[in-house]
Amino acid sequence: MGIRIGIVGSGAIGTYYGAKLAHAGSDVHFLMRGDLSEVLRNGIFVRGEGENFRVAPINCYNSTKEIGPCDLVIVAVKATSNSDLVDLVPPLLHEQTMLLTLQNGLGNEEFLANHFGAERVLGGLCFIALNRSSRTKIERYAYGHIVLGEFDRPSQPRTHKVAAEFTRAAVTCTVVDDLALERWRKLIWNIPLNGLSILGGGIDTAAIIGDKDLRQAMLALMDEVIAAAQKCGHPLPSDAWREHVKRTETMGAYKPSTLQDWEAGRPLEIEPIWGEPLRRAVAAGGQMPRTEMIYAVLKKLDHNRAGAKNLTGLTGQVQTSQ
Amino acid sequence: MGIRIGIVGSGAIGTYYGAKLAHAGSDVHFLMRGDLSEVLRNGIFVRGEGENFRVAPINCYNSTKEIGPCDLVIVAVKATSNSDLVDLVPPLLHEQTMLLTLQNGLGNEEFLANHFGAERVLGGLCFIALNRSSRTKIERYAYGHIVLGEFDRPSQPRTHKVAAEFTRAAVTCTVVDDLALERWRKLIWNIPLNGLSILGGGIDTAAIIGDKDLRQAMLALMDEVIAAAQKCGHPLPSDAWREHVKRTETMGAYKPSTLQDWEAGRPLEIEPIWGEPLRRAVAAGGQMPRTEMIYAVLKKLDHNRAGAKNLTGLTGQVQTSQ
Repeated sequence: MGIRIGIVGSGAIGTYYGAKLAHAGSDVHFLMRGDLSEVLRNGIFVRGEGENFRVAPINCYNSTKEIGPCDLVIVAVKATSNSDLVDLVPPLLHEQTMLLTLQNGLGNEEFLANHFGAERVLGGLCFIALNRSSRTKIERYAYGHIVLGEFDRPSQPRTHKVAAEFTRAAVTCTVVDDLALERWRKLIWNIPLNGLSILGGGIDTAAIIGDKDLRQAMLALMDEVIAAAQKCGHPLPSDAWREHVKRTETMGAYKPSTLQDWEAGRPLEIEPIWGEPLRRAVAAGGQMPRTEMIYAVLKKLDHNRAGAKNLTGLTGQVQTSQ
Repeated sequence: MGIRIGIVGSGAIGTYYGAKLAHAGSDVHFLMRGDLSEVLRNGIFVRGEGENFRVAPINCYNSTKEIGPCDLVIVAVKATSNSDLVDLVPPLLHEQTMLLTLQNGLGNEEFLANHFGAERVLGGLCFIALNRSSRTKIERYAYGHIVLGEFDRPSQPRTHKVAAEFTRAAVTCTVVDDLALERWRKLIWNIPLNGLSILGGGIDTAAIIGDKDLRQAMLALMDEVIAAAQKCGHPLPSDAWREHVKRTETMGAYKPSTLQDWEAGRPLEIEPIWGEPLRRAVAAGGQMPRTEMIYAVLKKLDHNRAGAKNLTGLTGQVQTSQ
């Protein structure tokens, strides 16, 4: 018997993985709001290397009450909208419902645990680059795999069951026993590259690693993240930066998600990527001086723009977790 | 007998102090280029709290050869144009000519010493806010005093003679025995405030100290500068940041000089304010992680804009040393 899956967050990440699962025959139910009628009419189109399909009809709804209890709820809202989850999630829960956050950075599992119970919570790191080119169209540019784990405990039989659901949908899914360690490992990349892309005036990864001084700042930040992770009890090896540098050197001129958010006029996910790691490092007696500066500057930039901000349409949005 | 004074650098700083000296009867000779004919025709107007005068005729020239040897040469070009001095200065020198740099940050005395002999060199820190509202008009907004010292040695009789020349022109001038210490003391302010004003998207001092996180970043940077100064053998007291914070709290919404340069499309004085202090701290075995990040980011921003830059006119330029 398949499991009943709810998708909360109809940006590119939630829509893409939900569509993949639905296309593979999983029992998927989407919460949609502005997009509802168009998706009901046309379904969802997915295009990427080796994939090109349409899912229709789509089970979509404009309230979670209409969806009702699910076995697995995939949370893919921007972390800046987490407070909405307090009302959105309860109608989706039965006693055994799993909550899987595919959000960026640190603190999202804790948010779900605090509000809905730690035993429900899993987390996934998405390595993917997507472009939502219209309300109903998703283009995938690179990667696609998920690293999946339980919140604050090793993998369980259910973790592998969830992974199998993704695998069946042709999404590579790796199960890990230490999700927190993997979150920190991903931050080695996100903290410097997402941050410097904004501070540098809107520059891509190639511009950062190709500039002598910015590359040095990036490496110093990577060291800082690794030291902070170690201080917080997550034993990343001291050369864990190597794989990231190597990957970045081959990835071309890539715009980190925060830069994409910035260019699209969306609020920045500042707390999970910089604020929460910084607070944890400081609480553990560590220091993240460079991260602290990025954090302060990004908050100010984000805040100053929030006033002048235009509401952006839903088309042309790009969402990635890199 | 008065001394013969040459002014190299006809931005707001050079023009203001030169005009003050000339107005008081000193024998002042200005190097001017684009502005020459208009200044010859109209003289220079200075306006500020408690001062409102015109100096005419002005001794101005479009080459230093025409000026010839002086007793005191005041250097007030942007540090980014220092290489021009190699050709500009020699015609102004006799055996005893003093070179006084009124430029920002670290490294300018050394530049003059390397090219023209250390024994000639003095340095002055200008605490002033000026607006050059047209080719011939200077408005002074705040302060005005100069802190004056010898390069790499205590004050000499001649230092006091130069100070007396300024004092006679109603410019408050304090002589110090340790110029390098004072340069570092001023950097406690410039490194954080000038830097964060740009990184924060073009924000003034009030926006920085009024924001919880930026204020904390500013204080951390101030500590970093004080520690670097100490490491380099300049014994700033550990609470030397206090006077700066206090002054900043009363100065209102002030745009640091680097922000003014940025808004006017001028190149940024990155090396004297961030690059040189950083290199000295590192050479002394210290660290300036936050400064290093500002340095890398500013260089990239400056570099990226240099390509797209428009030449700006000379009117409406604001020059300050704060």
